Amino acid sequence: MLLYDLPAGMHPRRVRIFLAEKGLTIPTRAVDAAQGENRQPEFLRLNPMGRLPVLQLDDGTAIAESLAICRYLETLHPQPPLWGSDALDAARVDMWTRRIEQQVSDPIAMVFLHSGEFYRGRVTQVPEVAAWARQNLLTTLTWLDAELADRRFIAGPNYTMADIVAQCAFVLGKAVGRRIPAEQAHLTRWFAEVTARPTARA
Amino acid sequence: MLLYDLPAGMHPRRVRIFLAEKGLTIPTRAVDAAQGENRQPEFLRLNPMGRLPVLQLDDGTAIAESLAICRYLETLHPQPPLWGSDALDAARVDMWTRRIEQQVSDPIAMVFLHSGEFYRGRVTQVPEVAAWARQNLLTTLTWLDAELADRRFIAGPNYTMADIVAQCAFVLGKAVGRRIPAEQAHLTRWFAEVTARPTARA
Repeated sequence: MLLYDLPAGMHPRRVRIFLAEKGLTIPTRAVDAAQGENRQPEFLRLNPMGRLPVLQLDDGTAIAESLAICRYLETLHPQPPLWGSDALDAARVDMWTRRIEQQVSDPIAMVFLHSGEFYRGRVTQVPEVAAWARQNLLTTLTWLDAELADRRFIAGPNYTMADIVAQCAFVLGKAVGRRIPAEQAHLTRWFAEVTARPTARA
Repeated sequence: MLLYDLPAGMHPRRVRIFLAEKGLTIPTRAVDAAQGENRQPEFLRLNPMGRLPVLQLDDGTAIAESLAICRYLETLHPQPPLWGSDALDAARVDMWTRRIEQQVSDPIAMVFLHSGEFYRGRVTQVPEVAAWARQNLLTTLTWLDAELADRRFIAGPNYTMADIVAQCAFVLGKAVGRRIPAEQAHLTRWFAEVTARPTARA
Protein backbone atom coordinates (compact mmCIF):
# COMPACT_ATOMS: atom_id res chain seq x y z
CA MET A 1 0.00 0.00 0.00
CA LEU A 2 0.99 3.61 -0.55
CA LEU A 3 -0.71 6.58 1.07
CA TYR A 4 -0.73 9.82 -0.90
CA ASP A 5 -0.65 12.48 1.76
CA LEU A 6 -0.95 16.24 2.14
CA PRO A 7 0.72 17.02 5.46
CA ALA A 8 -1.22 20.25 6.12
CA GLY A 9 -4.60 18.96 4.96
CA MET A 10 -7.55 18.31 7.24
CA HIS A 11 -8.65 15.11 5.51
CA PRO A 12 -5.23 13.43 5.24
CA ARG A 13 -4.65 14.19 8.94
CA ARG A 14 -7.68 12.01 9.75
CA VAL A 15 -6.01 9.05 8.09
CA ARG A 16 -2.64 9.64 9.75
CA ILE A 17 -4.21 9.82 13.21
CA PHE A 18 -6.31 6.75 12.45
CA LEU A 19 -3.19 4.80 11.42
CA ALA A 20 -1.30 5.95 14.52
CA GLU A 21 -4.19 4.86 16.78
CA LYS A 22 -4.11 1.45 15.09
CA GLY A 23 -0.35 1.25 15.41
CA LEU A 24 -0.05 0.87 11.63
CA THR A 25 2.62 2.26 9.35
CA ILE A 26 2.01 2.65 5.62
CA PRO A 27 4.55 4.05 3.17
CA THR A 28 3.54 7.63 2.45
CA ARG A 29 4.20 10.03 -0.38
CA ALA A 30 3.52 13.74 0.13
CA VAL A 31 1.82 15.45 -2.81
CA ASP A 32 2.68 19.12 -3.27
CA ALA A 33 -0.77 20.65 -3.67
CA ALA A 34 0.57 24.19 -3.26
CA GLN A 35 2.49 23.62 -6.51
CA GLY A 36 -0.50 21.94 -8.18
CA GLU A 37 0.91 18.41 -8.19
CA ASN A 38 -2.60 17.13 -7.36
CA ARG A 39 -3.85 18.63 -10.65
CA GLN A 40 -1.28 16.83 -12.80
CA PRO A 41 -2.42 13.91 -15.00
CA GLU A 42 -0.44 11.39 -12.96
CA PHE A 43 -2.36 12.20 -9.79
CA LEU A 44 -5.70 12.69 -11.56
CA ARG A 45 -5.46 9.10 -12.75
CA LEU A 46 -5.54 8.08 -9.07
CA ASN A 47 -8.26 10.52 -8.09
CA PRO A 48 -10.04 12.49 -10.82
CA MET A 49 -11.19 14.91 -8.11
CA GLY A 50 -7.58 15.89 -7.43
CA ARG A 51 -8.03 15.50 -3.71
CA LEU A 52 -5.97 14.03 -0.93
CA PRO A 53 -5.63 11.54 0.68
CA VAL A 54 -5.60 8.53 -1.65
CA LEU A 55 -4.69 5.00 -0.62
CA GLN A 56 -3.20 2.96 -3.43
CA LEU A 57 -3.25 -0.81 -3.03
CA ASP A 58 -0.54 -3.12 -4.31
CA ASP A 59 -2.64 -4.04 -7.36
CA GLY A 60 -2.91 -0.36 -8.27
CA THR A 61 -6.48 0.18 -7.03
CA ALA A 62 -6.90 3.69 -5.64
CA ILE A 63 -9.28 4.48 -2.80
CA ALA A 64 -10.03 8.15 -2.27
CA GLU A 65 -12.04 9.85 0.51
CA SER A 66 -10.52 9.79 3.97
CA LEU A 67 -13.44 8.04 5.62
CA ALA A 68 -13.61 5.33 2.95
CA ILE A 69 -9.90 4.72 3.53
CA CYS A 70 -10.27 4.55 7.31
CA ARG A 71 -13.27 2.25 7.12
CA TYR A 72 -11.39 -0.08 4.79
CA LEU A 73 -8.42 -0.15 7.17
CA GLU A 74 -10.80 -0.80 10.08
CA THR A 75 -12.04 -3.92 8.29
CA LEU A 76 -8.47 -5.16 7.72
CA HIS A 77 -7.30 -4.20 11.23
CA PRO A 78 -10.24 -4.25 13.63
CA GLN A 79 -8.18 -3.67 16.80
CA PRO A 80 -8.39 -1.34 18.60
CA PRO A 81 -11.90 -0.57 17.34
CA LEU A 82 -12.27 3.01 16.15
CA TRP A 83 -15.57 2.40 14.38
CA GLY A 84 -17.61 0.60 17.00
CA SER A 85 -17.36 -2.86 18.52
CA ASP A 86 -20.59 -4.25 17.03
CA ALA A 87 -23.22 -3.28 14.46
CA LEU A 88 -25.14 -0.95 16.76
CA ASP A 89 -21.99 0.66 18.12
CA ALA A 90 -20.81 1.16 14.53
CA ALA A 91 -24.14 2.82 13.74
CA ARG A 92 -23.58 5.28 16.61
CA VAL A 93 -20.09 6.05 15.33
CA ASP A 94 -21.46 6.46 11.80
CA MET A 95 -24.19 8.79 13.03
CA TRP A 96 -21.79 10.97 15.00
CA THR A 97 -19.14 10.96 12.31
CA ARG A 98 -21.68 12.23 9.83
CA ARG A 99 -23.06 14.86 12.19
CA ILE A 100 -19.56 16.13 12.88
CA GLU A 101 -18.68 16.17 9.20
CA GLN A 102 -21.73 18.14 8.21
CA GLN A 103 -22.02 20.42 11.22
CA VAL A 104 -18.36 21.03 12.09
CA SER A 105 -15.97 19.87 9.43
CA ASP A 106 -17.79 21.07 6.30
CA PRO A 107 -18.49 24.57 7.71
CA ILE A 108 -14.86 25.00 8.81
CA ALA A 109 -13.70 23.80 5.38
CA MET A 110 -16.06 26.34 3.78
CA VAL A 111 -14.70 29.17 5.91
CA PHE A 112 -11.20 28.16 4.79
CA LEU A 113 -12.18 27.83 1.13
CA HIS A 114 -14.10 31.09 0.98
CA SER A 115 -11.97 33.31 3.20
CA GLY A 116 -8.59 31.58 3.61
CA GLU A 117 -5.42 33.19 2.26
CA PHE A 118 -4.38 29.90 0.63
CA TYR A 119 -7.37 29.89 -1.71
CA ARG A 120 -7.17 33.55 -2.74
CA GLY A 121 -6.79 33.52 -6.52
CA ARG A 122 -7.19 29.75 -6.67
CA VAL A 123 -10.99 29.65 -6.40
CA THR A 124 -13.79 32.19 -6.58
CA GLN A 125 -14.21 33.06 -2.91
CA VAL A 126 -17.75 34.03 -1.93
CA PRO A 127 -17.72 36.00 1.34
CA GLU A 128 -21.42 35.24 1.97
CA VAL A 129 -20.69 31.51 1.97
CA ALA A 130 -17.94 31.99 4.56
CA ALA A 131 -20.28 34.13 6.67
CA TRP A 132 -23.07 31.58 6.46
CA ALA A 133 -20.68 28.78 7.46
CA ARG A 134 -19.37 30.82 10.42
CA GLN A 135 -22.91 31.42 11.61
CA ASN A 136 -23.80 27.72 11.36
CA LEU A 137 -20.68 26.82 13.25
CA LEU A 138 -21.63 29.04 16.19
CA THR A 139 -24.94 27.20 16.55
CA THR A 140 -23.17 23.86 16.24
CA LEU A 141 -20.60 24.60 18.93
CA THR A 142 -23.30 25.45 21.46
CA TRP A 143 -25.13 22.23 20.69
CA LEU A 144 -22.00 20.09 20.69
CA ASP A 145 -20.80 21.56 23.98
CA ALA A 146 -24.09 20.53 25.60
CA GLU A 147 -23.84 17.05 24.06
CA LEU A 148 -20.41 16.58 25.65
CA ALA A 149 -21.66 17.50 29.13
CA ASP A 150 -22.32 13.91 30.06
CA ARG A 151 -19.88 11.87 28.05
CA ARG A 152 -16.17 11.68 27.52
CA PHE A 153 -15.98 11.36 23.74
CA ILE A 154 -18.24 12.39 20.89
CA ALA A 155 -19.90 9.06 20.18
CA GLY A 156 -19.78 7.70 23.75
CA PRO A 157 -17.26 6.45 26.30
CA ASN A 158 -14.65 5.46 23.70
CA TYR A 159 -12.44 7.43 21.35
CA THR A 160 -13.67 6.84 17.78
CA MET A 161 -13.58 8.04 14.19
CA ALA A 162 -16.04 10.78 15.17
CA ASP A 163 -13.43 12.28 17.52
CA ILE A 164 -10.77 12.10 14.82
CA VAL A 165 -12.98 13.96 12.34
CA ALA A 166 -13.85 16.58 14.95
CA GLN A 167 -10.31 17.19 16.22
CA CYS A 168 -8.95 17.54 12.66
CA ALA A 169 -11.71 20.05 11.90
CA PHE A 170 -10.88 22.12 14.98
CA VAL A 171 -7.16 22.06 14.14
CA LEU A 172 -8.08 23.69 10.82
CA GLY A 173 -10.57 25.88 12.69
CA LYS A 174 -7.73 27.37 14.77
CA ALA A 175 -5.90 28.23 11.56
CA VAL A 176 -8.92 30.12 10.19
CA GLY A 177 -9.85 31.94 13.38
CA ARG A 178 -12.56 29.54 14.50
CA ARG A 179 -11.26 28.50 17.92
CA ILE A 180 -13.46 26.74 20.44
CA PRO A 181 -14.61 29.51 22.81
CA ALA A 182 -13.29 29.02 26.36
CA GLU A 183 -16.81 29.30 27.83
CA GLN A 184 -17.70 26.06 26.04
CA ALA A 185 -16.18 24.10 28.85
CA HIS A 186 -17.13 20.59 27.82
CA LEU A 187 -15.90 21.02 24.27
CA THR A 188 -12.72 22.67 25.56
CA ARG A 189 -12.14 19.76 27.94
CA TRP A 190 -12.74 17.25 25.14
CA PHE A 191 -10.38 19.05 22.72
CA ALA A 192 -7.63 19.22 25.36
CA GLU A 193 -7.97 15.49 25.95
CA VAL A 194 -7.97 14.35 22.33
CA THR A 195 -5.13 16.63 21.29
CA ALA A 196 -3.05 15.36 24.25
CA ARG A 197 -3.14 11.81 22.83
CA PRO A 198 0.25 10.71 21.52
CA THR A 199 -1.34 10.21 18.10
CA ALA A 200 -2.65 13.76 17.73
CA ARG A 201 0.38 15.04 15.84
CA ALA A 202 0.62 12.12 13.46
CA MET B 1 -38.09 -1.18 14.98
CA LEU B 2 -39.91 1.99 14.01
CA LEU B 3 -38.84 4.29 11.19
CA TYR B 4 -39.67 7.98 11.59
CA ASP B 5 -40.21 9.17 8.07
CA LEU B 6 -40.74 12.37 6.11
CA PRO B 7 -42.38 11.27 2.86
CA ALA B 8 -41.17 14.26 0.80
CA GLY B 9 -37.65 14.37 2.24
CA MET B 10 -34.53 13.49 0.29
CA HIS B 11 -32.81 11.67 3.14
CA PRO B 12 -35.78 9.55 4.29
CA ARG B 13 -36.32 8.51 0.66
CA ARG B 14 -32.86 6.93 0.67
CA VAL B 15 -33.89 4.67 3.54
CA ARG B 16 -37.22 3.74 1.95
CA ILE B 17 -35.56 2.76 -1.34
CA PHE B 18 -32.86 0.86 0.55
CA LEU B 19 -35.51 -1.10 2.47
CA ALA B 20 -37.44 -1.83 -0.73
CA GLU B 21 -34.27 -3.10 -2.44
CA LYS B 22 -33.66 -5.40 0.53
CA GLY B 23 -37.26 -6.56 0.52
CA LEU B 24 -37.67 -5.36 4.11
CA THR B 25 -40.69 -3.77 5.71
CA ILE B 26 -40.38 -1.70 8.89
CA PRO B 27 -43.30 -0.01 10.63
CA THR B 28 -43.16 3.66 9.71
CA ARG B 29 -44.49 6.83 11.29
CA ALA B 30 -44.63 10.00 9.22
CA VAL B 31 -43.52 13.14 11.07
CA ASP B 32 -45.21 16.37 9.98
CA ALA B 33 -42.21 18.64 9.52
CA ALA B 34 -44.28 21.28 7.70
CA GLN B 35 -46.17 21.72 10.97
CA GLY B 36 -42.98 21.64 13.03
CA GLU B 37 -43.56 18.24 14.62
CA ASN B 38 -39.82 17.54 14.23
CA ARG B 39 -39.11 20.52 16.50
CA GLN B 40 -41.31 19.29 19.35
CA PRO B 41 -39.64 17.93 22.53
CA GLU B 42 -40.92 14.41 21.85
CA PHE B 43 -39.07 14.21 18.55
CA LEU B 44 -36.01 16.13 19.74
CA ARG B 45 -35.51 13.43 22.37
CA LEU B 46 -35.01 11.00 19.49
CA ASN B 47 -32.85 13.33 17.41
CA PRO B 48 -31.71 16.62 18.95
CA MET B 49 -30.99 17.86 15.42
CA GLY B 50 -34.70 17.64 14.57
CA ARG B 51 -33.99 15.78 11.35
CA LEU B 52 -35.52 12.84 9.57
CA PRO B 53 -35.19 9.90 9.20
CA VAL B 54 -34.68 8.25 12.58
CA LEU B 55 -34.72 4.51 13.19
CA GLN B 56 -35.85 3.57 16.67
CA LEU B 57 -34.92 0.11 17.89
CA ASP B 58 -37.09 -1.97 20.18
CA ASP B 59 -35.01 -1.02 23.23
CA GLY B 60 -35.62 2.67 22.46
CA THR B 61 -32.21 3.40 20.93
CA ALA B 62 -32.53 5.98 18.17
CA ILE B 63 -30.24 6.02 15.13
CA ALA B 64 -30.30 9.19 13.06
CA GLU B 65 -28.61 9.95 9.72
CA SER B 66 -29.89 8.08 6.70
CA LEU B 67 -26.55 6.50 5.81
CA ALA B 68 -25.91 5.29 9.36
CA ILE B 69 -29.37 3.69 9.29
CA CYS B 70 -28.76 2.01 5.93
CA ARG B 71 -25.34 0.75 6.91
CA TYR B 72 -26.78 -0.72 10.12
CA LEU B 73 -29.52 -2.46 8.13
CA GLU B 74 -26.90 -3.73 5.67
CA THR B 75 -25.08 -5.44 8.55
CA LEU B 76 -28.30 -7.07 9.76
CA HIS B 77 -29.49 -7.98 6.26
CA PRO B 78 -26.48 -8.38 3.94
CA GLN B 79 -28.47 -9.69 0.95
CA PRO B 80 -28.70 -8.36 -1.67
CA PRO B 81 -25.52 -6.36 -1.06
CA LEU B 82 -26.03 -2.63 -1.51
CA TRP B 83 -22.78 -1.67 0.18
CA GLY B 84 -20.25 -3.92 -1.52
CA SER B 85 -19.64 -7.63 -1.42
CA ASP B 86 -16.25 -7.50 0.35
CA ALA B 87 -14.03 -4.97 2.11
CA LEU B 88 -12.58 -3.47 -1.05
CA ASP B 89 -15.93 -3.34 -2.81
CA ALA B 90 -17.38 -1.65 0.29
CA ALA B 91 -14.55 0.90 0.13
CA ARG B 92 -15.52 1.70 -3.47
CA VAL B 93 -19.15 2.14 -2.47
CA ASP B 94 -18.09 4.30 0.48
CA MET B 95 -15.89 6.44 -1.76
CA TRP B 96 -18.62 6.97 -4.33
CA THR B 97 -21.34 7.51 -1.78
CA ARG B 98 -19.28 10.26 -0.18
CA ARG B 99 -18.41 11.87 -3.51
CA ILE B 100 -22.07 11.89 -4.51
CA GLU B 101 -23.12 13.29 -1.15
CA GLN B 102 -20.64 16.13 -1.24
CA GLN B 103 -20.74 16.92 -4.96
CA VAL B 104 -24.38 16.27 -5.81
CA SER B 105 -26.58 15.83 -2.78
CA ASP B 106 -25.23 18.63 -0.57
CA PRO B 107 -25.28 21.25 -3.36
CA ILE B 108 -28.85 20.35 -4.35
CA ALA B 109 -29.87 20.49 -0.68
CA MET B 110 -28.24 23.93 -0.43
CA VAL B 111 -30.10 25.19 -3.48
CA PHE B 112 -33.33 23.98 -1.86
CA LEU B 113 -32.48 25.48 1.55
CA HIS B 114 -31.37 28.84 0.19
CA SER B 115 -33.83 29.36 -2.64
CA GLY B 116 -36.70 26.93 -2.11
CA GLU B 117 -40.19 28.18 -1.40
CA PHE B 118 -40.56 25.76 1.53
CA TYR B 119 -37.77 27.42 3.50
CA ARG B 120 -38.83 31.01 2.87
CA GLY B 121 -39.39 32.51 6.31
CA ARG B 122 -38.15 29.35 8.04
CA VAL B 123 -34.43 30.00 7.64
CA THR B 124 -32.30 32.94 6.56
CA GLN B 125 -31.90 32.25 2.86
CA VAL B 126 -28.63 33.49 1.38
CA PRO B 127 -28.94 33.81 -2.42
CA GLU B 128 -25.13 33.71 -2.84
CA VAL B 129 -25.00 30.29 -1.22
CA ALA B 130 -27.64 28.98 -3.63
CA ALA B 131 -25.75 30.49 -6.57
CA TRP B 132 -22.46 28.96 -5.44
CA ALA B 133 -24.11 25.56 -5.03
CA ARG B 134 -25.69 25.80 -8.51
CA GLN B 135 -22.32 26.60 -10.03
CA ASN B 136 -20.64 23.66 -8.26
CA LEU B 137 -23.37 21.38 -9.44
CA LEU B 138 -22.80 22.29 -13.09
CA THR B 139 -19.15 21.26 -12.80
CA THR B 140 -20.13 18.08 -11.01
CA LEU B 141 -22.66 17.00 -13.63
CA THR B 142 -20.10 17.29 -16.41
CA TRP B 143 -17.63 15.20 -14.44
CA LEU B 144 -20.19 12.61 -13.37
CA ASP B 145 -21.51 12.22 -16.91
CA ALA B 146 -17.99 11.38 -18.10
CA GLU B 147 -17.53 8.91 -15.22
CA LEU B 148 -20.68 7.07 -16.28
CA ALA B 149 -19.50 6.68 -19.88
CA ASP B 150 -17.99 3.27 -19.21
CA ARG B 151 -20.02 1.79 -16.41
CA ARG B 152 -23.62 1.01 -15.68
CA PHE B 153 -23.93 2.30 -12.12
CA ILE B 154 -22.12 4.92 -10.09
CA ALA B 155 -19.78 2.67 -8.11
CA GLY B 156 -19.40 -0.04 -10.76
CA PRO B 157 -21.44 -2.79 -12.40
CA ASN B 158 -23.88 -3.15 -9.49
CA TYR B 159 -26.61 -0.92 -8.10
CA THR B 160 -25.47 0.35 -4.69
CA MET B 161 -26.01 2.90 -1.96
CA ALA B 162 -24.18 5.43 -4.13
CA ASP B 163 -26.92 5.17 -6.76
CA ILE B 164 -29.61 5.56 -4.11
CA VAL B 165 -28.01 8.74 -2.76
CA ALA B 166 -27.62 10.12 -6.28
CA GLN B 167 -31.12 9.33 -7.50
CA CYS B 168 -32.71 10.84 -4.37
CA ALA B 169 -30.64 13.98 -4.88
CA PHE B 170 -31.76 14.30 -8.50
CA VAL B 171 -35.40 13.77 -7.51
CA LEU B 172 -35.05 16.82 -5.25
CA GLY B 173 -33.05 18.51 -8.00
CA LYS B 174 -36.03 18.28 -10.36
CA ALA B 175 -38.16 20.00 -7.74
CA VAL B 176 -35.72 22.92 -7.47
CA GLY B 177 -35.06 23.38 -11.17
CA ARG B 178 -31.82 21.39 -11.30
CA ARG B 179 -32.69 18.74 -13.88
CA ILE B 180 -30.02 16.63 -15.54
CA PRO B 181 -29.40 18.31 -18.93
CA ALA B 182 -30.39 16.07 -21.86
CA GLU B 183 -26.94 16.49 -23.45
CA GLN B 184 -25.43 14.60 -20.54
CA ALA B 185 -26.34 11.35 -22.16
CA HIS B 186 -24.67 8.91 -19.76
CA LEU B 187 -26.14 10.53 -16.69
CA THR B 188 -29.54 10.72 -18.40
CA ARG B 189 -29.33 7.00 -19.30
CA TRP B 190 -28.33 6.14 -15.72
CA PHE B 191 -31.14 8.23 -14.19
CA ALA B 192 -33.72 6.63 -16.49
CA GLU B 193 -32.53 3.18 -15.45
CA VAL B 194 -32.46 3.71 -11.69
CA THR B 195 -35.78 5.50 -11.59
CA ALA B 196 -37.37 2.68 -13.60
CA ARG B 197 -36.55 0.19 -10.84
CA PRO B 198 -39.68 -0.98 -9.01
CA THR B 199 -38.20 0.39 -5.77
CA ALA B 200 -37.74 3.95 -7.02
CA ARG B 201 -41.09 5.18 -5.72
CA ALA B 202 -40.78 3.58 -2.30
